[in-house]
Amino acid sequence: MKTQLLQDLALANRILFNEGVLDGFGHISVRDPSNSQRFYISRMMAPALVTVDDLLEVDLEGVVHDSAGRRTYVERFIHSEIYKARPEVQSVVHSHSPTVIPFGVTGTRLRPVCHMSGFLGGKTPVYEIRDFIGERSSLLVTNQKLGKALADTLGEENVALMRGHGSVAVGTSIKQSVYRAFYTEVNARLQAQSLALGEPIYLTEGECEETTEAMEVHLDRPWQLWVRRAKAAALDDHGA
Amino acid sequence: MKTQLLQDLALANRILFNEGVLDGFGHISVRDPSNSQRFYISRMMAPALVTVDDLLEVDLEGVVHDSAGRRTYVERFIHSEIYKARPEVQSVVHSHSPTVIPFGVTGTRLRPVCHMSGFLGGKTPVYEIRDFIGERSSLLVTNQKLGKALADTLGEENVALMRGHGSVAVGTSIKQSVYRAFYTEVNARLQAQSLALGEPIYLTEGECEETTEAMEVHLDRPWQLWVRRAKAAALDDHGA
Amino acid sequence: MKTQLLQDLALANRILFNEGVLDGFGHISVRDPSNSQRFYISRMMAPALVTVDDLLEVDLEGVVHDSAGRRTYVERFIHSEIYKARPEVQSVVHSHSPTVIPFGVTGTRLRPVCHMSGFLGGKTPVYEIRDFIGERSSLLVTNQKLGKALADTLGEENVALMRGHGSVAVGTSIKQSVYRAFYTEVNARLQAQSLALGEPIYLTEGECEETTEAMEVHLDRPWQLWVRRAKAAALDDHGA
Amino acid sequence: MKTQLLQDLALANRILFNEGVLDGFGHISVRDPSNSQRFYISRMMAPALVTVDDLLEVDLEGVVHDSAGRRTYVERFIHSEIYKARPEVQSVVHSHSPTVIPFGVTGTRLRPVCHMSGFLGGKTPVYEIRDFIGERSSLLVTNQKLGKALADTLGEENVALMRGHGSVAVGTSIKQSVYRAFYTEVNARLQAQSLALGEPIYLTEGECEETTEAMEVHLDRPWQLWVRRAKAAALDDHGA
Repeated sequence: MKTQLLQDLALANRILFNEGVLDGFGHISVRDPSNSQRFYISRMMAPALVTVDDLLEVDLEGVVHDSAGRRTYVERFIHSEIYKARPEVQSVVHSHSPTVIPFGVTGTRLRPVCHMSGFLGGKTPVYEIRDFIGERSSLLVTNQKLGKALADTLGEENVALMRGHGSVAVGTSIKQSVYRAFYTEVNARLQAQSLALGEPIYLTEGECEETTEAMEVHLDRPWQLWVRRAKAAALDDHGA
Repeated sequence: MKTQLLQDLALANRILFNEGVLDGFGHISVRDPSNSQRFYISRMMAPALVTVDDLLEVDLEGVVHDSAGRRTYVERFIHSEIYKARPEVQSVVHSHSPTVIPFGVTGTRLRPVCHMSGFLGGKTPVYEIRDFIGERSSLLVTNQKLGKALADTLGEENVALMRGHGSVAVGTSIKQSVYRAFYTEVNARLQAQSLALGEPIYLTEGECEETTEAMEVHLDRPWQLWVRRAKAAALDDHGA
Repeated sequence: MKTQLLQDLALANRILFNEGVLDGFGHISVRDPSNSQRFYISRMMAPALVTVDDLLEVDLEGVVHDSAGRRTYVERFIHSEIYKARPEVQSVVHSHSPTVIPFGVTGTRLRPVCHMSGFLGGKTPVYEIRDFIGERSSLLVTNQKLGKALADTLGEENVALMRGHGSVAVGTSIKQSVYRAFYTEVNARLQAQSLALGEPIYLTEGECEETTEAMEVHLDRPWQLWVRRAKAAALDDHGA
Repeated sequence: MKTQLLQDLALANRILFNEGVLDGFGHISVRDPSNSQRFYISRMMAPALVTVDDLLEVDLEGVVHDSAGRRTYVERFIHSEIYKARPEVQSVVHSHSPTVIPFGVTGTRLRPVCHMSGFLGGKTPVYEIRDFIGERSSLLVTNQKLGKALADTLGEENVALMRGHGSVAVGTSIKQSVYRAFYTEVNARLQAQSLALGEPIYLTEGECEETTEAMEVHLDRPWQLWVRRAKAAALDDHGA
């Protein structure tokens, strides 16, 4: 079962690149189902090239447990602090997906305009790193304090934007966090285009709840497609 | 002949994905030419992966007739109710095509700006599901009542938008419904870009009629292209 | 030499599709270098699939000369009338390239914002078919009268837009008409994006002349690329 | 070591095309590490097709040193004059990347909205060739005087826009100039989309410095991806 999980995690890295959510940067992790104090994430590399052999085990203090001494991303604290704060979360995606960033740097709030993205709810928060470290930083979440501040900003939501940087999406499974990261980007495109045409009708709170529940049972449908596409677009000779 | 029809339906699924009309969701159906009370549609799966073996027969009450007991989409009532209301319609596409959704959530009406999309006519209607089920729904067309309301909204038009959800396009053949779904999305892009530049000159009613008739005889031209492209981009080992 | 010309014409069809200028519709022709009263164009089919065997000879009255009795596009009069009016023109592209259409349906004039598209000059004209056939037409250029009206609108320019329909680009060679059709679309994207940011600085008349002359000698550079890409993306088993 | 450098330069040409920074035009060069008065650049051809065999050695007066007498780009003075003015610069990219051009023709200044593009700093300059050669030019940098004017405009910045033409990005290595050219285009897209939503929060001067330093150590991550993608998309039979 852990083999399947790690294969899914490697695939998810490639899917997120292949579907335009990640570029050369960004990462996805999954919590260890047999040890809630550990999670898996790739070593520091471009997600499109990740295979099972590149996955490392990290604890909730951000320490890598790898006999080969390999390093993971400096922003691993995004993951560790969210796992600490949210026991039900099993997977976290951090991306720079392109249409989400503009919502993070302007006052325009990201809100769901279609049933695919009801999980955004009514108040997608924006993490302003300046509030925690001042106006002279790398914008990167490089330690526990900044990771905790991000987890606090996220609160009980499924997605948080990071000003001038990107966003995080969480889920109770790899399939769900991938679905959410993907449809956060889709919604950003739909909302931006809607705003250019007029004042959009957003989903009501009730519609957010009902659509989230309704789509939840269909996560396998796009996943099967994305897997097939990622395999067809494979950039290497390794199976995942 | 039914073999050809089912092959075309499987191909149409893959074409609609390949040309950017469908993503992991959405569906296309065709009425059974030998039994107007039945239609064919894929089992519940991503359209890009559909082959002939995945096609099911469904009646106009939405009941699947499949010896293997397979299930189709919960939104099959979109199809069954339109077939009930519109005897001349032989094929229905339901999509979330991305540039059409913004027209469904703003007051800006989708109107034809070029000769390829004259079939849109002058008054593309928008289906507001809140009018029929209130402000707390999944937005999905999950029963006959909601399907009938959508068919009523569509009326005698070729395309209807669904607020916060997507759209439907109908035709007298698979090729025509696919053409219409594709050029509805194209027109949405053209119209959105036109609106950013100034006030567009829309097709007159007469131009809508004449262009629809003129293009009708050329449906095979893009179809041949789309078939070739779908086959070249096939994600599986099955022929359709 | 004619063999090379016809191979280039077949390739140009596929290039124009592959580079996003044509979709399932549109066409390119080349004048017969040994008989200025004739031109070559594909039979009625999607340009992406055209091979040398699909090319037909047509005279300037729009009559096809083909022993097999094959038909070409109903809009062949776009080509025949431009060849009549402009003796120096050797190749004509008619496209529905997507970002050009919005300029044809709004009052915003297409004007060059970069050195690649200086050939647009200062006054890209727009052909309004209503002026010649009224408000109830198919918008198609289906006879000599409409073709002549389009040629008149084009005048001595290199590109003319057609309201609600597309555009034409002409050149003294296949490479030049393809280059112009491609960079007309590129310029439309650049200009639309510029207009969203502020008032663009357009090329002066002198810059239009100088850039056109300067780029003229470099047509082979993108052509070699486009040929390679079209061959890599070939949708059929035929060489061109 | 020079072999590796030239392989990287050939690959960089193909990467910049494959990632949408260059089209049929544009060029990248690298300074000769063993002779600071010389640089390498392709012969005059489409960058997507460049292999090691196409690379030429040019001196800082713009003279090509090639026993076969091959020619390079007429705009080689962009490179030679920047290398003269900026001893620390080891690589220069000149592109027409599409979303950057609109910032060069309007008063809207290109400014960093995300941590990937902090290298843009606070005052990306715009080169107006009319200031140096008047209102009747080809816009091309065809001699030393125009190259020097561009280098003067660039000053100590990493990127300069060229009105109606494109931009230049410089770096202390091929990987850095490629990274900067790519994320200049990315930032232009992000900034344009942000401006459509509201007033963006730009990076502070301190954030520009810190993000530039922080990303500097991660140049290999996207580079490995881009190499893999360029090789997978190779349009020829030559290795680089």
